[in-house]
Amino acid sequence: MINIERQTYSLNLKHTFTIARGSRNQQHIVLIKIKHDGEIGYGEASPSDRYKENQNSVIKFYDQVDLSNFNDPFLIEDILNYVEKLAPGNQAAKAGIDIALYDLIGKKLKIPLWKYFGLNPDKTPTTSFTIGIDSPEIIENKIKEAEEFPILKVKVGVPNDEEIIKTIRKYTDKTLRVDANEGWKSKELARDKILFLEKEGVEFVEQPMPAEDVEGIKWLRKQIHIPIIADEAMGTISDILKVYELYDGINIKLMKCGGINKALKIIHAAKAMNLKIMIGCMVESSVGIAAAAQLSPLVDYADLDGNILINNDPFTGIYHHKGKIILSNEPGLGIQPCQI
Amino acid sequence: MINIERQTYSLNLKHTFTIARGSRNQQHIVLIKIKHDGEIGYGEASPSDRYKENQNSVIKFYDQVDLSNFNDPFLIEDILNYVEKLAPGNQAAKAGIDIALYDLIGKKLKIPLWKYFGLNPDKTPTTSFTIGIDSPEIIENKIKEAEEFPILKVKVGVPNDEEIIKTIRKYTDKTLRVDANEGWKSKELARDKILFLEKEGVEFVEQPMPAEDVEGIKWLRKQIHIPIIADEAMGTISDILKVYELYDGINIKLMKCGGINKALKIIHAAKAMNLKIMIGCMVESSVGIAAAAQLSPLVDYADLDGNILINNDPFTGIYHHKGKIILSNEPGLGIQPCQI
Repeated sequence: MINIERQTYSLNLKHTFTIARGSRNQQHIVLIKIKHDGEIGYGEASPSDRYKENQNSVIKFYDQVDLSNFNDPFLIEDILNYVEKLAPGNQAAKAGIDIALYDLIGKKLKIPLWKYFGLNPDKTPTTSFTIGIDSPEIIENKIKEAEEFPILKVKVGVPNDEEIIKTIRKYTDKTLRVDANEGWKSKELARDKILFLEKEGVEFVEQPMPAEDVEGIKWLRKQIHIPIIADEAMGTISDILKVYELYDGINIKLMKCGGINKALKIIHAAKAMNLKIMIGCMVESSVGIAAAAQLSPLVDYADLDGNILINNDPFTGIYHHKGKIILSNEPGLGIQPCQI
Repeated sequence: MINIERQTYSLNLKHTFTIARGSRNQQHIVLIKIKHDGEIGYGEASPSDRYKENQNSVIKFYDQVDLSNFNDPFLIEDILNYVEKLAPGNQAAKAGIDIALYDLIGKKLKIPLWKYFGLNPDKTPTTSFTIGIDSPEIIENKIKEAEEFPILKVKVGVPNDEEIIKTIRKYTDKTLRVDANEGWKSKELARDKILFLEKEGVEFVEQPMPAEDVEGIKWLRKQIHIPIIADEAMGTISDILKVYELYDGINIKLMKCGGINKALKIIHAAKAMNLKIMIGCMVESSVGIAAAAQLSPLVDYADLDGNILINNDPFTGIYHHKGKIILSNEPGLGIQPCQI
């Protein structure tokens, strides 16, 4: 019999984190344990109100989940199909279960998940480090804090974007990637912003305009020269036919798509469609970050810094060296609880 | 160190096997063993001249393969990337290596591959049984031989297609699927044939016209009502963007696409593109059939009868019950050598 236990937890951000949609100091998550035959798999749901989830909706979803009819955690397609059908949406909640099941499977097989997926742990990408929207003084401090990381992901989508970028460029010529989080509401504004960013040597832009503005994106893409990556426009795998031909690539997050199983399917579909692939995250503990990191040898870009932005990570086991993701050799996700 | 050994073998067909392209009594394959640390993985390459392969080209390809630089069979993405880059094409030869590596991995983990892939062995589909092109008398005998199988796949693409189908319908109202193997050379002929087949209650038609006749297929699809499935038009994953929007579904064969790893990626991409998925085979031993069967719980249709059509199968371990595929609980492919 497969048992599931849940526990709420609040991740504390080291600094107030601001993106185009708003600011916060905490991220309220739900940690889960899936137990089977003496082994424990750990999972995490880090919900986002952009996708109509929060800690309460995750708890409510988990209250419906009954895995006692399943005897074998290896039958993950069946279990995840059951979970999928309990309610639409709720992808972060679903991801928590998926992550815990894969951790359990890896532990039962006594191999790390990257090995289970046939991947070479030396081929992990270098993650970007996120610089939230802030005053020039604070941004200056954050650049120092990010010294070790060779790639910065800069949050924009506010009136003083140019000032933010110029401040960063005053201190560093590192690779810059930019995320507007749907912040530019007109196509002309998006064009002007991106043409400026191109001159500043930005590598690509994530979600310049609202996800639903399909005509705007079509127009915009002909006016600019750097790739645009779908984030808010690319939730689950059912969105891929919508973003294919509109964007150059996609940002896959376990909390948007429903977990490792679905992320892998999206990766394979995206490669077949010649889309660039980024693997990203919400503000997450090392549980969610370790889960996404297992798949990172398959992708073009990684933005897996969620656990670096917090100061009370309840788990350890996933690290970086000069930004390069270091996967553990321990079974499953390779993580251990340390604060819970 | 990973070692590879090869052995040629000729599969004897129980009956002369005729399709639109020609007839034969034997299928010349190459069986391989991949050895690592005391464990043996079995693989098979069953080449087809339609894809510019034969037993000699497979041997020539294997002469180039040197896996001695690889120490870990679990790093299958790296190994298969190395194999892929040795030469273009040669997908049956490549599939042989892929199959043997997965058999080895399953044996090392002591689990069957369907479990490794997270699939429920009870959810295998029912395979069709293939009726080659023949005289009405022989077809009558073959229908008796196929008594146990509830779904027949009928090879057509010759002038007397109608006679073949009417002969079959005289004896049975079983589900019929039809494969023209590119045999109808004009779109009008294909339309007339399919409108006839629709009246005979045929479920779908595989590859009605030559793979390269894109305009013909576009025209044809508007004239008919049953699904058409790409076979010769769908080789490797790079073809999927070409067949998407032209066909209703695809026939994936390990020997066309390069093996289990690539077949899984095609399955995920095809599902994202809302294509129906059939898993098929060449004339193959139980090695290739068991490999494809491991993935069969993921697909809509199966045509995995290659090993039933021969009388000197060098392996055992994959069975059918009233056509439903029965997966073994033994590790890896779950097969054992019996005649080699």
